[in-house]
Amino acid sequence: MSSTPAACPCHLAVVYTDGSDAGEGLNDGSNPLIERVRAGDTRALARAITTVENRDKGALELLKGLFPHSGRARVIGLTGSPGAGKSTLVDQLAREFRQSGQTVGIIAVDPTSPYTGGAILGDRIRMQSHFADPGIYIRSMATRGSLGGLARATADVATVLDASGRDVILIETVGVGQDEVDIVRLADVTVVILVPGMGDDVQSIKAGIMEIADIFVINKSDRDGAERVEREIRAMQSLASRADNWTPPIVKTVASEGKGVAELAGAISKYYAFIQQNALAQKKRAENWRERLLEMLRDTLMERVMREHMANGEASRYAAEIAQHQRDPYSLVEEIVGALIKK
Amino acid sequence: MSSTPAACPCHLAVVYTDGSDAGEGLNDGSNPLIERVRAGDTRALARAITTVENRDKGALELLKGLFPHSGRARVIGLTGSPGAGKSTLVDQLAREFRQSGQTVGIIAVDPTSPYTGGAILGDRIRMQSHFADPGIYIRSMATRGSLGGLARATADVATVLDASGRDVILIETVGVGQDEVDIVRLADVTVVILVPGMGDDVQSIKAGIMEIADIFVINKSDRDGAERVEREIRAMQSLASRADNWTPPIVKTVASEGKGVAELAGAISKYYAFIQQNALAQKKRAENWRERLLEMLRDTLMERVMREHMANGEASRYAAEIAQHQRDPYSLVEEIVGALIKK
Repeated sequence: MSSTPAACPCHLAVVYTDGSDAGEGLNDGSNPLIERVRAGDTRALARAITTVENRDKGALELLKGLFPHSGRARVIGLTGSPGAGKSTLVDQLAREFRQSGQTVGIIAVDPTSPYTGGAILGDRIRMQSHFADPGIYIRSMATRGSLGGLARATADVATVLDASGRDVILIETVGVGQDEVDIVRLADVTVVILVPGMGDDVQSIKAGIMEIADIFVINKSDRDGAERVEREIRAMQSLASRADNWTPPIVKTVASEGKGVAELAGAISKYYAFIQQNALAQKKRAENWRERLLEMLRDTLMERVMREHMANGEASRYAAEIAQHQRDPYSLVEEIVGALIKK
Repeated sequence: MSSTPAACPCHLAVVYTDGSDAGEGLNDGSNPLIERVRAGDTRALARAITTVENRDKGALELLKGLFPHSGRARVIGLTGSPGAGKSTLVDQLAREFRQSGQTVGIIAVDPTSPYTGGAILGDRIRMQSHFADPGIYIRSMATRGSLGGLARATADVATVLDASGRDVILIETVGVGQDEVDIVRLADVTVVILVPGMGDDVQSIKAGIMEIADIFVINKSDRDGAERVEREIRAMQSLASRADNWTPPIVKTVASEGKGVAELAGAISKYYAFIQQNALAQKKRAENWRERLLEMLRDTLMERVMREHMANGEASRYAAEIAQHQRDPYSLVEEIVGALIKK
């Protein structure tokens, strides 16, 4: 039972995936790319985002270089069920911000889509409507592999957009599961979009999402049932009060006609003023960072274990030995961790 | 940006939560408890399970000592929506196994319950029906903390029951989320329990659960709609075939009257014969152990990090510094991992 972690032809040298030779992967050195991103160069931005999203070589150096220049953008998360009209609303909101002279980055996250990367049809169609305006940058993100989740990738992309000088970052996602809750939690402000006539209306949105709403939108509010949705939100609000004493306002919109969009922008500004005034913005960001930091640590440690101790099918071999009761997993884990971690 | 992981008054000595002094925590040394568990002593079993479930001092030594004696029990996972009559069916199935002379351990997992530990009212009520029979041991498990999930705790408890010589272990859970999928995946055989007239019937059960069913049960099959549920399962089966070419049978039961229970036990035996014959049992167990091994590694590494580098509020302090952009999280993670892991 007390066999050594044996059969582990691990290269014990410390190898960072994105090490000091990061510039090489970017062909032009990492600093020039960082400078070009910061200068607002759209092609450099697209390239940096792809590097970060795919965790390509150089991603870590890029993020290290860009992070100190991030933190200025207002990050707004918008979520709602499929068919709630999120994309239309987000586009209208982007226009609204543009009219007040602000630059916008949009990250459209669809955890249900198998596609990844930038070149998604939807992006192109949406980009056309903002064709003449380099002040709006749209990027889609979809399913990622098991290591490092979609939320982490979204956060990294938001950091890049933020460092590129965008004033406002809109993160839009489908509010159906834990992933989406994690994604919208990255934002300073969370907007939950509902529509009338979607079966159970309010009940159809996951309870966890309802609880993190700072602002409610009833989109397609010219439809029958808008009043009922509003009553249901109010009823729900009467049951639970927030620690910060903020009562999430309900904004009615018809995004396809641009109705209510200015009011939504106003509600967002009001919430921002509220959290600035109460130092809540900083507290909220610190709480989010705590979660992210632990998640990054967990991922990084596992990457190291997999790369240095499990790169040659050891995990499957160990598992077969455990299943045949030739080895006990509890001692094995102790041995691997002991061999890995400094005394 | 390149500050050392500083301000980390970590005790760098290697401290295992459950170290060589494990016996101390058990008052009577770990070996006597292991021997008593193996001898089938019910009080020792209850004590060992509590130790393992709560990850008390001595848990690791106990699992190391018991693991080599486990692996003999047949592990059967049963899942279904609330109200599907799982507990009644599981109790009837336990009786059926008892009649053929086999001893049974039942682990009832309810991830939605805030209760934990053994002394749950439901246990006592259920135990009464098996009062005179020490051949059936029932244990409830509920929500666990964030580190080490419910699935891991369930697997550890199953190892203890297995080593105690139980012939059959029944793991029952509510089929509503990923946790439950993880739990039933521990089993050699997975039984999914449906009932007629639960709204969308088959659709109401998470797709992920449907896919892992080795056997379907339509319980309360004397109700209207049983035929419809059966047709829906058949329709679903016609769309997807399994890699192992097994077609999950559909067993109709009325658990409250004991109807169909013998047929279910028969279907379970048949599936066992199938997986033994095709060496699938071993393959399935090895695959499950691979997942568990990586999960155990991940948890153990994070425990070490939290204990040795984050025990004094460092995570929150770091997070506040990151939120104020005084520190970049990417370099910080590299530094912590570098300080922790052997070169």
